Amino acid sequence: MKATVYLVGAGPGAADLLTVRAARLLGEADIVFYDALIGPEILALAPQAQKVAVGKRCGRHSTAQHFINKRLLDAARRYQVVVRLKGGDPMLFGRAHEEISFLENKNIQVEIIPGITAALAAAAEHRVSLTQRGVSRSVVFATPRVADGALPSNWEKAVAAADTAVLYMAANDGSLVKEVLIKAGMRADTPVAIAESVSSPQSALHAGTLADLPELAKGLKGGPALLLIGELFAALQRQPERIAEKRAKPA
Amino acid sequence: MKATVYLVGAGPGAADLLTVRAARLLGEADIVFYDALIGPEILALAPQAQKVAVGKRCGRHSTAQHFINKRLLDAARRYQVVVRLKGGDPMLFGRAHEEISFLENKNIQVEIIPGITAALAAAAEHRVSLTQRGVSRSVVFATPRVADGALPSNWEKAVAAADTAVLYMAANDGSLVKEVLIKAGMRADTPVAIAESVSSPQSALHAGTLADLPELAKGLKGGPALLLIGELFAALQRQPERIAEKRAKPA
Repeated sequence: MKATVYLVGAGPGAADLLTVRAARLLGEADIVFYDALIGPEILALAPQAQKVAVGKRCGRHSTAQHFINKRLLDAARRYQVVVRLKGGDPMLFGRAHEEISFLENKNIQVEIIPGITAALAAAAEHRVSLTQRGVSRSVVFATPRVADGALPSNWEKAVAAADTAVLYMAANDGSLVKEVLIKAGMRADTPVAIAESVSSPQSALHAGTLADLPELAKGLKGGPALLLIGELFAALQRQPERIAEKRAKPA
Repeated sequence: MKATVYLVGAGPGAADLLTVRAARLLGEADIVFYDALIGPEILALAPQAQKVAVGKRCGRHSTAQHFINKRLLDAARRYQVVVRLKGGDPMLFGRAHEEISFLENKNIQVEIIPGITAALAAAAEHRVSLTQRGVSRSVVFATPRVADGALPSNWEKAVAAADTAVLYMAANDGSLVKEVLIKAGMRADTPVAIAESVSSPQSALHAGTLADLPELAKGLKGGPALLLIGELFAALQRQPERIAEKRAKPA
């Protein structure tokens, strides 16, 4: 029987936000390769499987992509059900493309199981719909983060042009994001919020304006964080407990 | 005990693409209100619950929003666990905002359970990552469809500015989308694809260029459809079986 490598979205963090299909595949896996942000409750869904950390995380020790590719290939030659577990959704800032291309070129069967991306989990948890009739008909998911050697990209134009924006891997770049977006024509009083550790017990929200962004970022506790930008998020500033939380942070 | 209304994302169609949390809530529901695109396999996850169709679908008979709101309120006063099941994700083109505001104003507890949005399911099924290093760092989800009385919106500027775009509720507006996007500066040979009935046995893909869009739309079989736009989707044109499928459609 031919092996399949399943690229599986692990969702935002909570184990019950995996899809039913993802949970089932974890229960059938011979081996699971997982990223740094995958928690023990999710790995516990695969008690029978060998588990291999291949964690990549901004600014921390990471396993090079070519080495991950090689390990997936080796596993596909030894096992039937190989699961590559990625935080969020594999097809959105998940670098799935590189693993799919590599494996398909080696004639390994690959299937992709989508996951709840952090933006949608943040919208659900903080109760702000990313689209609203008459207010927001476009939402852009973007990142200002550039890998070594990447081409320049006009991410800020898409953010400025969309009604609503969610930035991934941006929360530690508050000063840069503020400067670039104001230069792109966005108002300094555009509502923003940083959603940290979405769907986990450490979940926190830091709401303010684009002008406040560098200061808001100082309140982060080091969990995965998303930057929400747009008029819709004014609703988060009006929630008293959240303003209190924000004010309680060291400036 | 106080009732809770759960706004639950049903995902793109396949029952095992619901989250584990969504499936569990369906199993606990007293009553389930569901949209037109929710299939019987998903409803079968709630064998104990009363089921009420409140289907809304483009161009077909629909239940007015204010009537849905009223029914949710009535149910919250009679039952403990009220599930409002929406296709895809509730917070992305799901009009969740209107139901949340209405219910919260009536002091009804509301929780939102995210779902796999069709764009991510389409990316997984057709194996094209929506972001790719050095090629796509921004993806916009937008709709050109305007509800009666809605304000005009510059959705096309966000689409033209982003590296990759997915349009919801747009597949039947091929001529309009083509015209507006070319006027916004997009090239007529920009790769596009229409992904129809994602995650179901009727799944089909129609790949071409922006110039072909009105013709591609003629091949649709009436399932829910998403429009994918951007250089990344050139990969879909190169897959021989998909070109064959496209050519087999009546022009």
